[in-house]
Amino acid sequence: MVEIYGEAIGTFILVLLGNGVVAGNVLNKTKGGNTGWIMITLGWGLAVTIAVYASGIMGPAHLNPAVTIAMAAVGALPWSSVPGYILAQMAGAMLASVFVWAHYYPHWEETKDPGTILATFSTGPAIRHTASNVIGEAIGTAILIIVVMAMGPNNLTSGLGPMVVGFVVTSVGLSLGGTTGYAINPARDLGPRIMHAILPIANKGDSDWGYAWIPVVGPILGAVVGALLYNMALALI
Amino acid sequence: MVEIYGEAIGTFILVLLGNGVVAGNVLNKTKGGNTGWIMITLGWGLAVTIAVYASGIMGPAHLNPAVTIAMAAVGALPWSSVPGYILAQMAGAMLASVFVWAHYYPHWEETKDPGTILATFSTGPAIRHTASNVIGEAIGTAILIIVVMAMGPNNLTSGLGPMVVGFVVTSVGLSLGGTTGYAINPARDLGPRIMHAILPIANKGDSDWGYAWIPVVGPILGAVVGALLYNMALALI
Amino acid sequence: MVEIYGEAIGTFILVLLGNGVVAGNVLNKTKGGNTGWIMITLGWGLAVTIAVYASGIMGPAHLNPAVTIAMAAVGALPWSSVPGYILAQMAGAMLASVFVWAHYYPHWEETKDPGTILATFSTGPAIRHTASNVIGEAIGTAILIIVVMAMGPNNLTSGLGPMVVGFVVTSVGLSLGGTTGYAINPARDLGPRIMHAILPIANKGDSDWGYAWIPVVGPILGAVVGALLYNMALALI
Amino acid sequence: MVEIYGEAIGTFILVLLGNGVVAGNVLNKTKGGNTGWIMITLGWGLAVTIAVYASGIMGPAHLNPAVTIAMAAVGALPWSSVPGYILAQMAGAMLASVFVWAHYYPHWEETKDPGTILATFSTGPAIRHTASNVIGEAIGTAILIIVVMAMGPNNLTSGLGPMVVGFVVTSVGLSLGGTTGYAINPARDLGPRIMHAILPIANKGDSDWGYAWIPVVGPILGAVVGALLYNMALALI
Repeated sequence: MVEIYGEAIGTFILVLLGNGVVAGNVLNKTKGGNTGWIMITLGWGLAVTIAVYASGIMGPAHLNPAVTIAMAAVGALPWSSVPGYILAQMAGAMLASVFVWAHYYPHWEETKDPGTILATFSTGPAIRHTASNVIGEAIGTAILIIVVMAMGPNNLTSGLGPMVVGFVVTSVGLSLGGTTGYAINPARDLGPRIMHAILPIANKGDSDWGYAWIPVVGPILGAVVGALLYNMALALI
Repeated sequence: MVEIYGEAIGTFILVLLGNGVVAGNVLNKTKGGNTGWIMITLGWGLAVTIAVYASGIMGPAHLNPAVTIAMAAVGALPWSSVPGYILAQMAGAMLASVFVWAHYYPHWEETKDPGTILATFSTGPAIRHTASNVIGEAIGTAILIIVVMAMGPNNLTSGLGPMVVGFVVTSVGLSLGGTTGYAINPARDLGPRIMHAILPIANKGDSDWGYAWIPVVGPILGAVVGALLYNMALALI
Repeated sequence: MVEIYGEAIGTFILVLLGNGVVAGNVLNKTKGGNTGWIMITLGWGLAVTIAVYASGIMGPAHLNPAVTIAMAAVGALPWSSVPGYILAQMAGAMLASVFVWAHYYPHWEETKDPGTILATFSTGPAIRHTASNVIGEAIGTAILIIVVMAMGPNNLTSGLGPMVVGFVVTSVGLSLGGTTGYAINPARDLGPRIMHAILPIANKGDSDWGYAWIPVVGPILGAVVGALLYNMALALI
Repeated sequence: MVEIYGEAIGTFILVLLGNGVVAGNVLNKTKGGNTGWIMITLGWGLAVTIAVYASGIMGPAHLNPAVTIAMAAVGALPWSSVPGYILAQMAGAMLASVFVWAHYYPHWEETKDPGTILATFSTGPAIRHTASNVIGEAIGTAILIIVVMAMGPNNLTSGLGPMVVGFVVTSVGLSLGGTTGYAINPARDLGPRIMHAILPIANKGDSDWGYAWIPVVGPILGAVVGALLYNMALALI
């Protein structure tokens, strides 16, 4: 049960800081406005690091349904734990979206482009291309899961571990994120998208539901395939 | 008593390096002029890291009245120690402002905008909106205190600890700082604001006293609420 | 044999993330387009760090024929292991190029300059000057090998080690990479160049085979000279 | 004697990577040209980190006459060792300048401004103001020495130590370097200045000898005062 709280709290911090950095970059009249991709990728990496430090004392700090499902797929987590983990991750991500909205409250009024506003909640592709977008999300998540597994579960949530996980997310953002915006985490994308649809945000447009399945399916696919490949490689040792 | 010196020395280094990076970014004719938000957020994060390394051998390195009050609120510091800590933090921050002024001495003459000059001492909001500004300062400081507490007091002032604390401050700056300039520390804002009023700085304007209470009240509020929430979460484990 | 798999997997991740960050910076319509040299150098450094974390459990994580040959030259690896290591590194780098191509699939069509497209596979000089280009690649690789040897083989593939190796590569990129694009690794340059010639990439031009020998010979020369110099220095202690 | 070699090798790597990053930023036709102050400060910080890792196995890795003199002033090094250390540091810095010149060989011809070329060897002030420039160099070096002493001599040359020292130099650059270019090291400034005068560099102008004493005297002053202040603070514990 403590682990469930940990997943909710950690994913809350992750999405608050992660979508916060997007808002700080793209909304009008912020002090860091238009700083660019280094700000986004560094900010998301630090968001992961800090979320893992803060929640790692309560559990494994997956903070990501794709990681949770992959861990179950390789037998590192009972399948019965999966629904609770995912619900907690979704709840944390959704609550975080409310806080991002409140934190930047006067800035929505100043930002006129609905696409920009959606970007502070959920990802969208640079070029809309279904196969490539799914594969892109899968590749990024596979890299994440492979490094997470190579680090070993005991070393991830304290000491250097959370820094390494954050570095991986910054690296995936820099190297592979420019195509789809690297959701690589269904809760990080779907939770805020639901809140984007619900919250009374000034100047918002539609929530791009036609794209919404890709940052859910792509990451899960990539995480499971990555975890299975890693276990095959490990069996060679 | 040694801890009091540590708070003064550490906050001195913190504000010297922290306001130094703002001065280096916004004053005219500096070599790093207009580098932008990455410079500010990276510079403030490193300022925290270095201040904690330098003063952590003398005490807990709060370097922030909001942290000190929150630690007292959760019973980790006797209330009787609070006034001494805060006075030392204020003294360190005020002395640091004198050094920033001296260090950039010929650059004030070259900088004509009074708002720019005030920014090298104290924070101001991107959009003036009292409720949102207070909440913004509170959220940023709550994240800081939660991670600080999750790291544990024994691991903060040496080894990786000061780096993690610096990373948190960089992350808060990137993700939540674009609204108010993330004081998240009353001494860091009020001490330099007093010195801004006192020092004979070329081209300075007023010290924006109408805003001065927000970066004092917001951080204290956020730190206390964050610390209490963290303890509630800890009680679940 | 496990080490051979480790070299292939690690070099695959290295080149996927490394050439990925170049593609993300230079191809048209990516979200991080034109972020610049900080993105390239930070991204390549993180690519190295992550590749070493992921493959260091399987072997020494050279991921670079110049490192492998230098280790053999100083007696730290039997010469009989060298061909297998290098073939694995080349295979990993070539396969990674296929993934970079697939990951950025719709972006090649949008990018009209053949030189830009070649840059996402292999390096080219800022100013074509054979002697200087060879020396430049050699100096960068010598710095890399000296730090790798100074860290000691046992500390490179876990803990802080992979971060330090990544920092060296970022540093070499920032300080010495602006001349030739710092291949400093024959497999990282020749493997993708072969794939550039083979793959049906939209808008590609020639593969600049006249330059191809320099990022092979320069790094090997630098690594061997660096390793011998280091051993001479070590003999003084 | 080994320590003397360590000082020479370490200062060689320091100045090669440090002045290399300046050259990569300011010379014409480099790939990272005009990236700016983040590149300079990050690159110099990494240069320090890597130089300390590479030479720390041979000695204390001062790599800086101001540090050496300050260590002697507080009794941590016999005065009789000082001349040898400083000569080695100067020799390393001078040799490194030859390598920077060779590495960027075709780029000097492309760079027409003599002030830009001097900047790749030695520092110069943003605003020429003797008192402020001396004080600025002294403050930056004092911060450096205080953190170095707070870390403790045993923890500086391996593990996290070299990273912390590099972070301090990056921080000093970001926060205090925009005024004088933060030499904070007499060997780093005077050694390359001598080589600037001697080497047949295309398009070079004069070596600004009128300023040359400031980045020698300022850092030594700051280091000695910083070290004495630190010892006074330590005596309180």
